[in-house]
Amino acid sequence: MKGLPSIAPLASVLARQDGTASGIIDRNAAPPNLSTLANNTLFETWRPRAHVLPPINHVGDPCMHYTDPETGLFHVGYLYSNDDISGAAGAITDDFVHYRDVKPDVHVFIEPGGKNDPVAVFDGSVIPRGINGTPTLFYTSVSFLPIHWTIPYTKGAETASLAVTYGNGSNFTKVNHGPSIPGPPYGSNALNVTGFRDPYVFQSPRLDALLDSDDGVWYNVISGGVHNVSATQFLYRQVDPEFRDWEYLGQWWSEEPNSTWGDGTWAGRWGFNMEVANIFTVDETGYDDDGDLFITLGTEWGYAPVEPQTSPQRNMLWASGTLSKNETQRGWGHDSWGAWGHGKDDDSEVKFQPNMAGFLDWGTSSYAAAGKYLPASSQASQQSGAEDRFISYVWITSNHFGDLDFPDDQQGWDGSLATPRELTRGTISNVVDNALVHETASWRVDSKSSMGDTVELVTLHQKIVREAWDAYTQNATNTITQAGRTIEQSSQSNTVAFDKSPSSKFFVMTASINFTEQARGNNSDVKAGFKILSSEHEETVIYYQFSNETLIIDRSNSSAAALTTNGIATTNEVGKLRLFDIQCEGEPEAHVETLDLTILVDNGIVEVYANDRFVISTWVWSWYAASNNIAFFHEGSQAVKLGDVQIYEGLADAWPERSR
Amino acid sequence: MKGLPSIAPLASVLARQDGTASGIIDRNAAPPNLSTLANNTLFETWRPRAHVLPPINHVGDPCMHYTDPETGLFHVGYLYSNDDISGAAGAITDDFVHYRDVKPDVHVFIEPGGKNDPVAVFDGSVIPRGINGTPTLFYTSVSFLPIHWTIPYTKGAETASLAVTYGNGSNFTKVNHGPSIPGPPYGSNALNVTGFRDPYVFQSPRLDALLDSDDGVWYNVISGGVHNVSATQFLYRQVDPEFRDWEYLGQWWSEEPNSTWGDGTWAGRWGFNMEVANIFTVDETGYDDDGDLFITLGTEWGYAPVEPQTSPQRNMLWASGTLSKNETQRGWGHDSWGAWGHGKDDDSEVKFQPNMAGFLDWGTSSYAAAGKYLPASSQASQQSGAEDRFISYVWITSNHFGDLDFPDDQQGWDGSLATPRELTRGTISNVVDNALVHETASWRVDSKSSMGDTVELVTLHQKIVREAWDAYTQNATNTITQAGRTIEQSSQSNTVAFDKSPSSKFFVMTASINFTEQARGNNSDVKAGFKILSSEHEETVIYYQFSNETLIIDRSNSSAAALTTNGIATTNEVGKLRLFDIQCEGEPEAHVETLDLTILVDNGIVEVYANDRFVISTWVWSWYAASNNIAFFHEGSQAVKLGDVQIYEGLADAWPERSR
Repeated sequence: MKGLPSIAPLASVLARQDGTASGIIDRNAAPPNLSTLANNTLFETWRPRAHVLPPINHVGDPCMHYTDPETGLFHVGYLYSNDDISGAAGAITDDFVHYRDVKPDVHVFIEPGGKNDPVAVFDGSVIPRGINGTPTLFYTSVSFLPIHWTIPYTKGAETASLAVTYGNGSNFTKVNHGPSIPGPPYGSNALNVTGFRDPYVFQSPRLDALLDSDDGVWYNVISGGVHNVSATQFLYRQVDPEFRDWEYLGQWWSEEPNSTWGDGTWAGRWGFNMEVANIFTVDETGYDDDGDLFITLGTEWGYAPVEPQTSPQRNMLWASGTLSKNETQRGWGHDSWGAWGHGKDDDSEVKFQPNMAGFLDWGTSSYAAAGKYLPASSQASQQSGAEDRFISYVWITSNHFGDLDFPDDQQGWDGSLATPRELTRGTISNVVDNALVHETASWRVDSKSSMGDTVELVTLHQKIVREAWDAYTQNATNTITQAGRTIEQSSQSNTVAFDKSPSSKFFVMTASINFTEQARGNNSDVKAGFKILSSEHEETVIYYQFSNETLIIDRSNSSAAALTTNGIATTNEVGKLRLFDIQCEGEPEAHVETLDLTILVDNGIVEVYANDRFVISTWVWSWYAASNNIAFFHEGSQAVKLGDVQIYEGLADAWPERSR
Repeated sequence: MKGLPSIAPLASVLARQDGTASGIIDRNAAPPNLSTLANNTLFETWRPRAHVLPPINHVGDPCMHYTDPETGLFHVGYLYSNDDISGAAGAITDDFVHYRDVKPDVHVFIEPGGKNDPVAVFDGSVIPRGINGTPTLFYTSVSFLPIHWTIPYTKGAETASLAVTYGNGSNFTKVNHGPSIPGPPYGSNALNVTGFRDPYVFQSPRLDALLDSDDGVWYNVISGGVHNVSATQFLYRQVDPEFRDWEYLGQWWSEEPNSTWGDGTWAGRWGFNMEVANIFTVDETGYDDDGDLFITLGTEWGYAPVEPQTSPQRNMLWASGTLSKNETQRGWGHDSWGAWGHGKDDDSEVKFQPNMAGFLDWGTSSYAAAGKYLPASSQASQQSGAEDRFISYVWITSNHFGDLDFPDDQQGWDGSLATPRELTRGTISNVVDNALVHETASWRVDSKSSMGDTVELVTLHQKIVREAWDAYTQNATNTITQAGRTIEQSSQSNTVAFDKSPSSKFFVMTASINFTEQARGNNSDVKAGFKILSSEHEETVIYYQFSNETLIIDRSNSSAAALTTNGIATTNEVGKLRLFDIQCEGEPEAHVETLDLTILVDNGIVEVYANDRFVISTWVWSWYAASNNIAFFHEGSQAVKLGDVQIYEGLADAWPERSR
């Protein structure tokens, strides 16, 4: 706990109730059944300090971010709810390290109850200079629930409406007219949708040229699907300066329901319903209108039979690809009875064709990423010297989207946003042009070397936002360097404790692992990585398993609390990462690409970055105060070479102005 | 007043307060300023007994009529409001003479306040076998006010939603999804409408054939206009069996804003905004899918400059014409900023082209007619032996749409529906083929005689619904025959009192007037007709003035109350009626068509029918009990021959089950 008890009643209550502070709970002894504890007793137990989450209660999807053109401050938004209110709340930042709530006590800046949104406010996005040149929110206004891809859609359930802020973003006033988009295509083009939400606004010189649009016009993409026809995205173009009307340009991207990219290895499933699509163009350094087109998206699916209103599976994906104009004459068909629900309006003015796709985050609790163009003129970029960027926040649910009976009340909050990431076009150079390269995968071959024996691959790069990275590493309260070592083959698990481990559960560490070429192959049994958050009672093992090219967070023994309390997930987190063969010019032999790991631990949150192109974000509910130890981990018949490990402890207090 | 005081509290209160009954007011003496009287004092003073109106308070547009296929009962509906509630109420009838409220105390069968209609419920129409085979209302669900053709339209203000009755029509349950039609065309086809309301549902084998539709599909027409572009009607076709979706087929009928049919003589102005369009096909005997296509519609306009939110002028019109398929390739244009509000979506799948048009009612208080197909299987038709018909109810406002400061509170109610009419295709035979025939008018030439010197004209016929006519004439409490006479030329007004006049203000009379050929011409000064509701203090003169072919209700001296009280209109009602030259085969000379008049007086309501093709409905607020006298009226230098006059006194008590 930080600071003195606040005069804010809410915070005071929480402070008194927090078990960690008051000694109600003992982190040096085995935990009780946590669900028996008083509300808020666990408030601090797993609470991150460097992440974006509301002061209390539930955070949902991140959304509605923008840089205020007047102040240069970046506004990060998220859906918020407690027992009394719901809507969206947010915070501002000038450095992606420190945040300030736009309203105290997480009063929302928009809430449902208007004519367009009597039931709920769902995700939206912001036009920074919108109506009257003022930040203008285009959001999902909800009139009917339930909405779910497993059940028939209620016509009119989701519409897209406008709200404008006239101040500092602490309040968005709904525009006094009906929805700008009153639902999916209807009438002759009626679509029996699975969902129709999360309007994402963006500008696109590429689309302007393809569609002969006025320069600078805004587009928006609404995510959804059509029952039995597709998971899809609906493209719209601004019609009038007040954003009152949007022209429907068709389903610019549709995939067969629950189909896969390739065999599904690298990019999960397109699902039955797409959500939270984000559209952006980036090159190697940041946002660039001439860069590659990327889309991040969430997909909802499940293995049959799926129980209605459950989504056993959600994938947080990205795709990149090309746009082409659809030259097919767009006809006006005549309907007959059978037309309903057959989704005939699949002629789009423009079509998106993926050429690579992957997971934005492999974590089973990671979903609903919301990104935003961040101009060089923003305060953060001005200070860091960054050019235009695209920044994305992933949501990390702590109760598996409400499905798990986690002791939320005892904790007093649930979920968080992940550390914001910079998304760019990334390259992998000097890759040996062998079979490993040629797959329908999360990379594509961009060019061959002049010699013809290596290629340069392109993929999506993801890095912790530079300002945060710099702050965590340069302002660490404690820095530890653990010397690397080569660990020889071993028939059993081999653990080598670090000379010194962090004294807290707030740190970021970097490491590298080199595997031999012999590690490759189906018969490989090599695993190598780190045990973290470990003590005699608990441990979390993060390791790469070469046999199936997976990076695993083994949580099976991660939490003593899981032994006493329901809802504390100990399932493994698994992601697929290919280490290519690399051969630099002049090198006599190819070598296996180095595995570069960055592991960020912010109390209950663990984020694992690998090679700038792989992320798993998840929760680890280690119980014991002593579970801070780190060790090298290795297993298998091949040696690995572990590089030096850097540990930066402390991270940052993201909320210096909060009372706790 | 009828009957004994009821036990119904409301009626008892009214009974006690009614000035006529209690002697508070003296109809044999000059009236006080009526606005100074207690509420409901004037309840009975001008209240009709044979008309459809709610027990108390305000009646608005008639709408939502239907014949219940289960009972055969005809349901007449109307918008209703009092200080506390608004919505729509209705009554049932098996004979168009007697009615029973579907709910006591005029509780509405639908009221605003739902998700689709938070602000108001406006006009709609009923599919008798709709959802689940049950009467299904398709109505205007209102989310934003004000709505007016003189001001910018609020996007989303008017949508079209469904409600279903599961019982006797006393309650319509709103379907639990969003609007079936969420507004005018939007996006690339965005229309800056003046209005978008009053969905009128109908079936049309003619449209089925033109549009290659499934047999029996439902269509609906929504009335409105586009700012600076048109007064228009939007055509839709049913998509799914639940009526959840409707396909937009374009603006099937558009007219330049405030343009006229011909020079405007016969059919007023198309206005800036169309309302309450009804679509039906009739032949000479009644409803017929192969009959002529007719549309009744209201138009809103005013002479410039028009003050915002005022409609100085409203016309209650009809038009007939042909449908043709629009073979123009329907294109998808690309929008630019300028597109907004330019109403580009004027390519309709099918186009309506009028070939004649006229006034459904020339009365300045007559508007918002709502008609309905009445099957031969209805109870009323079963009893009367009528084939399929089209029945229309016109609204007669008593305070000029709220603009006049009529003593509404003192009366306790305002407005009424007019006597229902049967609308059919009418013919005028043996018409001399001279210049009188050839105009852009409310008739068209259907055929020439074999001799070529006469033609048969076609127009819209309007007759008092046969059951009511039969009841009023056959069950009269008192029948008077006044012998006709020829009245010679006279330089002054010439009044000849009837030998016997009705003893009440509840009667219907028939009369005929023959003019000489010399009456025709610009220099004609002949006027002939009747003084009714007359006494030494008051008179209302209904006469035909040949010089300008007008039928006039001169109300200038119609009400002593107008001398003491504001808001009692004494302006003349005027309509245009052409009497053709008729020459039957074998007749040596042509003669002027006989003017056949039917005048229905139901206390304050006066309806004048002429030659089955002309109606003026209005209010006459005669004050004195003695103002029952009738006289022939004549003026001018040509003689007229007045036929025998039949007077049927009593009409009928339309509401035998009401407590008063």
